[in-house]
Amino acid sequence: MPELRRDPIVGRWVIISTERGGRPHDLQPSPSQSLAVALCPFCPGQERLTPREILAYRPQATDTNSPDWSIRVVPNKFPALHVEGDMGREGIGIYDRMNGVGAHEVIIETPNHKERLADMPSKRIEDLLWAFRDRILDLKQDLRLRYILIFKNHGAAAGATLEHSHSQLIALPIVPTSVSEEMDGCRTHYEQKERCIYCDIMRQEFVDGVRIVAENPEFLCITPYAPRFPFEMWILPKRHAGYFEECQRTQFEFLAMILSEALRRLDKVLARPSYNFVLHSSPLHEKTGEYYHWHFEIIPKLTQVAGFEWGTGFYINPVSPEESAKALREAEI
Amino acid sequence: MPELRRDPIVGRWVIISTERGGRPHDLQPSPSQSLAVALCPFCPGQERLTPREILAYRPQATDTNSPDWSIRVVPNKFPALHVEGDMGREGIGIYDRMNGVGAHEVIIETPNHKERLADMPSKRIEDLLWAFRDRILDLKQDLRLRYILIFKNHGAAAGATLEHSHSQLIALPIVPTSVSEEMDGCRTHYEQKERCIYCDIMRQEFVDGVRIVAENPEFLCITPYAPRFPFEMWILPKRHAGYFEECQRTQFEFLAMILSEALRRLDKVLARPSYNFVLHSSPLHEKTGEYYHWHFEIIPKLTQVAGFEWGTGFYINPVSPEESAKALREAEI
Repeated sequence: MPELRRDPIVGRWVIISTERGGRPHDLQPSPSQSLAVALCPFCPGQERLTPREILAYRPQATDTNSPDWSIRVVPNKFPALHVEGDMGREGIGIYDRMNGVGAHEVIIETPNHKERLADMPSKRIEDLLWAFRDRILDLKQDLRLRYILIFKNHGAAAGATLEHSHSQLIALPIVPTSVSEEMDGCRTHYEQKERCIYCDIMRQEFVDGVRIVAENPEFLCITPYAPRFPFEMWILPKRHAGYFEECQRTQFEFLAMILSEALRRLDKVLARPSYNFVLHSSPLHEKTGEYYHWHFEIIPKLTQVAGFEWGTGFYINPVSPEESAKALREAEI
Repeated sequence: MPELRRDPIVGRWVIISTERGGRPHDLQPSPSQSLAVALCPFCPGQERLTPREILAYRPQATDTNSPDWSIRVVPNKFPALHVEGDMGREGIGIYDRMNGVGAHEVIIETPNHKERLADMPSKRIEDLLWAFRDRILDLKQDLRLRYILIFKNHGAAAGATLEHSHSQLIALPIVPTSVSEEMDGCRTHYEQKERCIYCDIMRQEFVDGVRIVAENPEFLCITPYAPRFPFEMWILPKRHAGYFEECQRTQFEFLAMILSEALRRLDKVLARPSYNFVLHSSPLHEKTGEYYHWHFEIIPKLTQVAGFEWGTGFYINPVSPEESAKALREAEI
């Protein structure tokens, strides 16, 4: 059973998940950055290589765990967390731990091994958003869970270990520190001004104009004012809302369109970089609807700017967001 | 002039430093990880290739900016911050910014291009610690500055852009969020218990024993209970102290010894990995002496475990600290 441990100083929980194959000798940096190209467990016909599917969208009514799906959700074969078991909250001397209860799922975005998310038709990206929503609504019923992280690692430099396009979901029995900090900041702003800070940011961005990358009737894509990384982008719903999973159908249509556009602009400006995207939505079962505003953050992984940030939490960004936004906005896609 | 910008939600300041050469086309990930091997600006005889030296330890009395030094400190040629200028604190709509006032220095650890810190005699590492101290004491006189980050990027995967062994110093007019969070955690513990949390941690680690990597009369090296990364190590002074720069001579002797030992153990277990180390010391001009405890954190950079952590602030660690400590402790060095 994986274990959750709390740093006694800053309160950050981390997952210690030794089942993921962390013998010391497995951790040698590999000389090559290329991803495994052997038998792909995410390709149609190889369904037996993954754990049994949790959800699949099948254009025709075909059997579970058979081919002919368009999106398929399976448990991670090397899960960081396990669904079964009790919480096992416990103090060990001055330390706090609990069992690694939760879920770790893989959303296989396409049956086509070579297809990239940025190249998919917007309608197919919309299906992916529905799959995110379906999984969140299902997992929300488990009252042990307090936060769901949905993210994508695209490319080896961004942490992907399989080439076949996929996203991941991690459902946690705790709220990550970074999420709590974001919630606290939003709550403080709301208490002072009775306004959502992300709504304020969007108003400011429409006035300034210089950090806008793209927009459509429902969404705005900007480079944030104080970005940690070059070409970092945020995609925000124009309507205030705390929970991604409460989106309406037309919103998913427009979200798929702007997500596709943002990724294609990134591809164009940076020649298909590795990237991460992360959904920021409210913790489960918390009433954050007035002050929190769900959104996506997209972070291209540009190897030269990796560095001491991990150790310090401090960021030096060599590209201003105004310059990033201009390049992205003007890219011909 | 570089610029400091504050994220309006979580309060994190970032440096936007476009002088560091951040045109979009400079940010393409390079196919090769190898470091530049052209004329090295840190080698003796090439002193003219760096800005003029701030400090050098010269065994014989030789001229500044001439060869025959053992350690040399110069301004970073592409500084993230500038020493001159006023603070320029300003609100821009809902945002906060200030000028990038501060210092960014390079501590060249050895005249020998090929020599690695882990391979240096402990006496030479002690000199490096004295250089850190000298620079902190000097910069502390500038009352605009509030925090000094001292860190090392070793190896391309850890962010080093030059192979020649060096550390860096960044003096900031703000306290980084991650430092404030650490201070807050320590202060809260102290207010509750009237004890330093790091002293409590050391007592617990001596009881448990399983996370001890090395110790000597003045220092303890452990893998922390809730590490973000495999083989993360902390080096803590056994005597409670808030400020690195107030170390006594014998402490630097023992610190050099244990730092050397930790790096050699890491080299042995992980076959010379890239790593970062970061000095965690009190903010300048703050009275944190009772509740804060300075220390070093060492983080090997093992590429497979890079991932979504940047985007989420959430960490999955595939190696338990007990397993890391055992491997490090038992390595034959």
